[in-house]
Amino acid sequence: MSSQTAFNPTTAAELEVILASAQKAAAPWAALRPAARADILDAVADALDAANEILVPLAMKETNLTQARLTGELKRTTFQLRLFGEVLRDGAYLDARIDHADANWPMGAPRPDLRRVFEPLGPVVVFAASNFPFAFSVAGGDTASAWAAGNPVILKAHSGHPGLSLATANIITDALAAVGVPAGVFGLVLGTAAGATALQDPRVKAGGFTGSIPGGRALFDMANQRPEPIPFYGELGSNNPVFVTLAAAAERGAEIAAEFVGSFTMGAGQFCTKPGTLFVPRGSDIVQSLRAIELPAPATLLNKRIQDGYTEVLEALSSHDEVSVLSQGSNPLADPPSPTLLLTTAEDLLSHPESLQAECFGPTALVVEYTNESDLVALAESFEGQLTATIIGNEDCQVASLIEVLARKAGRVLWNQWPTGVSVTYAQQHGGPYPATTSVGSTSVGTAAISRFLRPVAYQGFPQDLLPEALQDANPLNVPQMINGVR
Amino acid sequence: MSSQTAFNPTTAAELEVILASAQKAAAPWAALRPAARADILDAVADALDAANEILVPLAMKETNLTQARLTGELKRTTFQLRLFGEVLRDGAYLDARIDHADANWPMGAPRPDLRRVFEPLGPVVVFAASNFPFAFSVAGGDTASAWAAGNPVILKAHSGHPGLSLATANIITDALAAVGVPAGVFGLVLGTAAGATALQDPRVKAGGFTGSIPGGRALFDMANQRPEPIPFYGELGSNNPVFVTLAAAAERGAEIAAEFVGSFTMGAGQFCTKPGTLFVPRGSDIVQSLRAIELPAPATLLNKRIQDGYTEVLEALSSHDEVSVLSQGSNPLADPPSPTLLLTTAEDLLSHPESLQAECFGPTALVVEYTNESDLVALAESFEGQLTATIIGNEDCQVASLIEVLARKAGRVLWNQWPTGVSVTYAQQHGGPYPATTSVGSTSVGTAAISRFLRPVAYQGFPQDLLPEALQDANPLNVPQMINGVR
Repeated sequence: MSSQTAFNPTTAAELEVILASAQKAAAPWAALRPAARADILDAVADALDAANEILVPLAMKETNLTQARLTGELKRTTFQLRLFGEVLRDGAYLDARIDHADANWPMGAPRPDLRRVFEPLGPVVVFAASNFPFAFSVAGGDTASAWAAGNPVILKAHSGHPGLSLATANIITDALAAVGVPAGVFGLVLGTAAGATALQDPRVKAGGFTGSIPGGRALFDMANQRPEPIPFYGELGSNNPVFVTLAAAAERGAEIAAEFVGSFTMGAGQFCTKPGTLFVPRGSDIVQSLRAIELPAPATLLNKRIQDGYTEVLEALSSHDEVSVLSQGSNPLADPPSPTLLLTTAEDLLSHPESLQAECFGPTALVVEYTNESDLVALAESFEGQLTATIIGNEDCQVASLIEVLARKAGRVLWNQWPTGVSVTYAQQHGGPYPATTSVGSTSVGTAAISRFLRPVAYQGFPQDLLPEALQDANPLNVPQMINGVR
Repeated sequence: MSSQTAFNPTTAAELEVILASAQKAAAPWAALRPAARADILDAVADALDAANEILVPLAMKETNLTQARLTGELKRTTFQLRLFGEVLRDGAYLDARIDHADANWPMGAPRPDLRRVFEPLGPVVVFAASNFPFAFSVAGGDTASAWAAGNPVILKAHSGHPGLSLATANIITDALAAVGVPAGVFGLVLGTAAGATALQDPRVKAGGFTGSIPGGRALFDMANQRPEPIPFYGELGSNNPVFVTLAAAAERGAEIAAEFVGSFTMGAGQFCTKPGTLFVPRGSDIVQSLRAIELPAPATLLNKRIQDGYTEVLEALSSHDEVSVLSQGSNPLADPPSPTLLLTTAEDLLSHPESLQAECFGPTALVVEYTNESDLVALAESFEGQLTATIIGNEDCQVASLIEVLARKAGRVLWNQWPTGVSVTYAQQHGGPYPATTSVGSTSVGTAAISRFLRPVAYQGFPQDLLPEALQDANPLNVPQMINGVR
């Protein structure tokens, strides 16, 4: 990435300006009515859509991803900004609750007039991802949800696409300025050290991150070790195991094999939801089918660091005595690499969970043969927290126990679908027990992601005109209000 | 507390049994329908109410609190258990969301059928408080909300009331057994080391705590430094400043003085919501009124450790050159201590925020004279995170900026009421920015406390009969469902 060297890290003086202006912008940005913030998110989305012909080529150059993929990703990104606008106009995200005073409250003491609403946290530092240069980057999901919640965003650009990050930032800055938003609502930071400094600054009140387990854990630790710890929402890594039942394998083994290859090689395997492990019955024709399928041609990975990391993990996996090559192109370790399918047994996987269940970011997956379908529960139990877990089954399968375990291990459980592709919707859940995410109770995709960047405040005994609008009896914002426990 | 020595810390072998049985109970407890768990919470509440004549005297003996106070607290505690039952029967806490598949979803890619619901985390360790031997102890708010959410609870008893803790635990255990609940749904642990070990055990998935800043921070750090970090909800400490405006002081200074004395000496000042600082206009007659009021008689504090901590902090506060005694009984440092009111100026408070804004647990408060009402904003800004902040004002006050700052600093902002007394309601918020709590986005009192012990899980593409009941189209639990973004 020769272009990277052209971008200088943010200096301490520049960072101070960004932090001070984020802090200054926090109160006016928080004070805007939700619908006004929605209009601003729309304006940013419109500006990004309009710059599509500038942004997509820049992204192609810096990430090696295809035009079709990046065009789709930009569309997803602007859709996401507008969807959070819809959330703001709806107002249910405020969870407005009104308890009227009640002298006979059965607790044994009178109930005061209490009203509770969600308010913004303050400036949020967002660490962008490498693999989604739009959707999990400068104007991605963390930014959109933190903004929607009413917080300024300080965006730490990913070193993999600095030119695109700067171009996106300029479009955002211009779009915000055009509608009169204070400059500090958005700031861009370059460089690992500046990002870490920002996360530890007392003016910053939360962090968001998408990336590797070591990187995310280091930042999570920083956020928690501050004198004032702050919430840190890191989406780190996942193996995304897929469990094929006996019946499904017997019924449509070839089809499953083809779908699996499509899923694990999609985007050269550079998705956090790539299915990394496929459990198949020993002797099923899935293994034969997989061997017979011609794997896709080599595709260049995002950048050299990803390429180096990929070959390192692939070499480590392949070197296991218990692991053999199931299918592989001619240049598995080259740049660009041919995809690889490895093969092992359930017993071996259970003997080496740490190494064989680690995420391999790139076009490799591990096929694991099991003996008895009843073993699947113990195999599922052996995994750490996951973003997704998938069952390929049919109506006759006895999978209740497997579902119970997988719902405990993963944030999203799929049935006869593949985990790659994370739809931005109301019911999406992208996040799971550690190390899938550092915050088990949250999602980084979908409308519920806004909750991460809010905190509840109760007002007791206030006159109507001093209450936030969402808590006033007249309900001028027309938001859903729970009154005396009734919605 | 001679009785403490009679209770032996939980041994490693005993703890292992408790942890294993909590883990074993997790799935069946989680699988119960919410209304069935509600019935069980009711049964526990009934059993505790029925044991009132055993429990209250035990609590009096171990905590020095009055019969009236403890009788009220037990009533509050059983009310709280039943209120969480109401939350379970309502079902909105599940936040059930259903997105139907949509081939024309405007994101640019088809939307799959996605359904998201909150599920339990797994075994929760709860650390009981000293100052509420019922409401924040064995069967208190953390236990009630963690249970309601569907998690087994391992309760680390507070060393200040071990006899009451064991008696309460026995009543719970019998009540649960009588309705056929697996034993591991509740376990009692004695001793600091056993509590810390439990919190770090991989089978434990969350922690709750009410107590001091150093103790809570140490446990928070442990929870975050685990290989698998877990959510830790600590309610630590608060100064609860009260800001009296010029107009209010002029209008009803004597009344404010009397109410303030009632609030800061209530329960011998041993509430986390005790108003620790009162800002009054320089020269207002509030100071004279306070000097004239006879402070309440000495009351014995909870235990010797609290007494020692109290006198230490009081001595440190009093020794400041800038701090004088405003009013004090004859034995401020004795056991039991006479209440104390100290006096200083706004300038001095701003010069020594760390020492003068620290929580003093016991019957002492600091009165601070300010010069200009406009100084209140900067004074408010100087505080760390608080559980509560209060404005005593009237209709003519210009307090918009003060409210903005206080809503940023505190979880609950009060108007012309006093912070002691935390009603258990739908809209209550007991929690604020650090160090008030370790988790700024949550509450430990009120129905919203259940959210702390839940995590979202999405099911993609599942047939109806394999979905959790709350997500089925037929909605057999009759819970609120958001369908395609519409509630």
